Amino acid sequence: MESTLQSTIESIGYNVYLQDSLNELANFVETGNYSKFFILTDEFTSVHCLPLVEEKFAGKTYDLIEINAGEENKNIDFCIGVWKMLIDFGADRRSLLINLGGGVITDLGGFAASTFKRGIDFVNVPTTLLSQVDASVGGKTGIDMDSIKNIIGTFTQPKAVFIDQAFLKTLPPREILSGLAEMLKHGLIVDAAYWEALKNSDLSIPSIELIGQSVVIKNRIVISDPTEKSHRKALNFGHTVGHAVETYSLDNDKDHLTHGEAIAIGMICESWLSVKKTGLSEAEVNDIVKVLTRLYPKYQLPESNFDAMIELMKKDKKNEGNTINCTLLKSIGTYAINQICTEDELRESLKYYASL
Amino acid sequence: MESTLQSTIESIGYNVYLQDSLNELANFVETGNYSKFFILTDEFTSVHCLPLVEEKFAGKTYDLIEINAGEENKNIDFCIGVWKMLIDFGADRRSLLINLGGGVITDLGGFAASTFKRGIDFVNVPTTLLSQVDASVGGKTGIDMDSIKNIIGTFTQPKAVFIDQAFLKTLPPREILSGLAEMLKHGLIVDAAYWEALKNSDLSIPSIELIGQSVVIKNRIVISDPTEKSHRKALNFGHTVGHAVETYSLDNDKDHLTHGEAIAIGMICESWLSVKKTGLSEAEVNDIVKVLTRLYPKYQLPESNFDAMIELMKKDKKNEGNTINCTLLKSIGTYAINQICTEDELRESLKYYASL
Ligand SMILES: NC(=O)c1ccc[n+]([C@@H]2O[C@H](COP(=O)([O-])OP(=O)(O)OC[C@H]3O[C@@H](n4cnc5c(N)ncnc54)[C@H](O)[C@@H]3O)[C@@H](O)[C@H]2O)c1
Ligand SMILES: NC(=O)c1ccc[n+]([C@@H]2O[C@H](COP(=O)([O-])OP(=O)(O)OC[C@H]3O[C@@H](n4cnc5c(N)ncnc54)[C@H](O)[C@@H]3O)[C@@H](O)[C@H]2O)c1
Ligand SMILES: [Zn+2]
Ligand SMILES: [Zn+2]
Repeated sequence: MESTLQSTIESIGYNVYLQDSLNELANFVETGNYSKFFILTDEFTSVHCLPLVEEKFAGKTYDLIEINAGEENKNIDFCIGVWKMLIDFGADRRSLLINLGGGVITDLGGFAASTFKRGIDFVNVPTTLLSQVDASVGGKTGIDMDSIKNIIGTFTQPKAVFIDQAFLKTLPPREILSGLAEMLKHGLIVDAAYWEALKNSDLSIPSIELIGQSVVIKNRIVISDPTEKSHRKALNFGHTVGHAVETYSLDNDKDHLTHGEAIAIGMICESWLSVKKTGLSEAEVNDIVKVLTRLYPKYQLPESNFDAMIELMKKDKKNEGNTINCTLLKSIGTYAINQICTEDELRESLKYYASL
Repeated sequence: MESTLQSTIESIGYNVYLQDSLNELANFVETGNYSKFFILTDEFTSVHCLPLVEEKFAGKTYDLIEINAGEENKNIDFCIGVWKMLIDFGADRRSLLINLGGGVITDLGGFAASTFKRGIDFVNVPTTLLSQVDASVGGKTGIDMDSIKNIIGTFTQPKAVFIDQAFLKTLPPREILSGLAEMLKHGLIVDAAYWEALKNSDLSIPSIELIGQSVVIKNRIVISDPTEKSHRKALNFGHTVGHAVETYSLDNDKDHLTHGEAIAIGMICESWLSVKKTGLSEAEVNDIVKVLTRLYPKYQLPESNFDAMIELMKKDKKNEGNTINCTLLKSIGTYAINQICTEDELRESLKYYASL
């Protein structure tokens, strides 16, 4: 693991800034030859995050577009709202949209910008841990429709991404944990030393060094496989079971699991599968389980619902044909993609989690 | 002018088929390794055009998506309708959308496909003369919003375009004339021999050779300037005045002008301006006026409305700052971009048209 902080990470045609990022944003805005600026926020990021940006903007004028917070608003109605505001405010081809918020804002804002006048520039200022470590690279924009996540979207790179750890101070602890699951995943799939570093750190608000390390890992994977044919599937570790648990919880729990909480469960199940199928050692799975159960509260998974979850896994877009496809671990720090698992194996892995 | 017919024109990463095109389409569908096929039509192209395609499809199964015809339906509501139909019919990443219709269908269908699951493949089968000679190359997709044309869209190339002259047999004569204006424009801006050929042809249904020639010209211009910085502005000839007249007519006439009818008026006005400003000869402008007034009915432009039209020209997106920008002719077959015209000059050019 490289433990020193890179101040900038080069992704596909743009920079991710990690140090002094809000000054970098102000500088970008100042020197970018844009005609107009728009900031997109949700109701919480206008309160908690906008003041930090305004401080650096020093009198720069912009128009604010605010939408309701939450995944249920990452939809075409709010996207139309953004387009109409851009029209009303007179946005032209040389306008810049600044997406200030979590993954909902950067995904929806990215989509709106990538399709307004056939594409205007946008930059992302991710304000949740999840959006900082996961949504900041990869070029995916999108909105949900008919309960299908990201069914409408584009592949469009932002012009820059500005990550500032200061935003995390106001983020609820569960949202921190949600992003943390992806960081832990990054360690587990390709970087044992990073996994060790995470284990031994105070993770209540992860340091910018640890955040940066995650961005570096995801960026390396994305660049090596921009069309999502092979390496990029490494990022699916924990997500076959995790997505099913997440969907199940969304449908059944009043206070449903966050994405990261579900992925943490998925990583436990898929680590257990990795012992059976791809040579992960007992000692490693125990290490993984110890760390994850320490960080994440236990979720009640009654055996009577396993069938429903298996059905959800079968529908997963990662599958080809009628099989269930997982990315597993060969060891902590090395992965194996395209591992076909049987329904029985997956059922056993859920049973393992329930037994902990 | 090359008068022999090329059977295929290579555009940016795809082919435009001009000969035996519906067999080429059937072949594309057969060999393309797609999981599912969708055909998008409007109420008229399902009746007039779909049978010609079905004949070649020989039992191939597909799902049909039909929307209402007309520019007023090139909007987000129908686009959402297309997305939802794709969802309901189970479209996946390896599905193909076949856009069968005029520019409304190819623009809206192209946009819907380019954003569904972050982009599925689509091909265009343009069935109007305008969409064959103009929308078939350039990669522009789009829908209208708040009365602004193509305000939402992407730059996405189709996987192929299949042009068959047979579709034109059922096209109303005014729609033929609408596309013809763009063909005449192609001759006027870059190819005097093509202009001569058009003048001396039966244009009630233009031959596939003449259609192909137009596609070749537009394709050459688009390829030489994919980002619309210079050469591509050649295509704006007739469109500064033409767009204003078109918008004016849309707002004021019950039976409003087609795009091409308005552009024909624009080309007359801008040819007159070309005599004043860029050296077009009197003989040439007379030739142009003679051809256009023979083909297109005279439109009543009362002088009391010139101001309104000038205001529309000032709003044109082609302008930079507060000037009115035209593409004019130096001679038949050579153009000059970025010609700043004064309000008085434009008013005079409208007066010239009204006086004919
Ligand atoms: N594009 C990608 O590659 C990618 C990757 C991962 C996730 N995503 C998407 O991201 C979304 C989830 O991201 P998320 O968890 O950031 O969701 P989110 O945007 O809904 O943010 C979660 C909550 O935190 C609030 N919030 C944001 N920043 C805050 C701050 N600094 N202080 C206090 N509150 C704050 C938000 O208002 C919201 O209520 C999903 O829609 C997912 O599909 C996209
Ligand atoms: N993408 C581009 O580069 C580009 C270029 C030029 C125009 N356009 C767009 O194209 C649209 C105009 O195109 P259009 O004139 O083809 O419009 P259109 O699609 O509305 O077609 C005109 C009419 O003809 C009918 N029709 C189509 N084919 C027919 C056939 N073979 N027989 C009988 N009727 C038929 C249609 O149902 C419609 O009523 C505009 O929205 C414009 O913005 C796009
Ligand atoms: Zn995830
Ligand atoms: Zn035109």
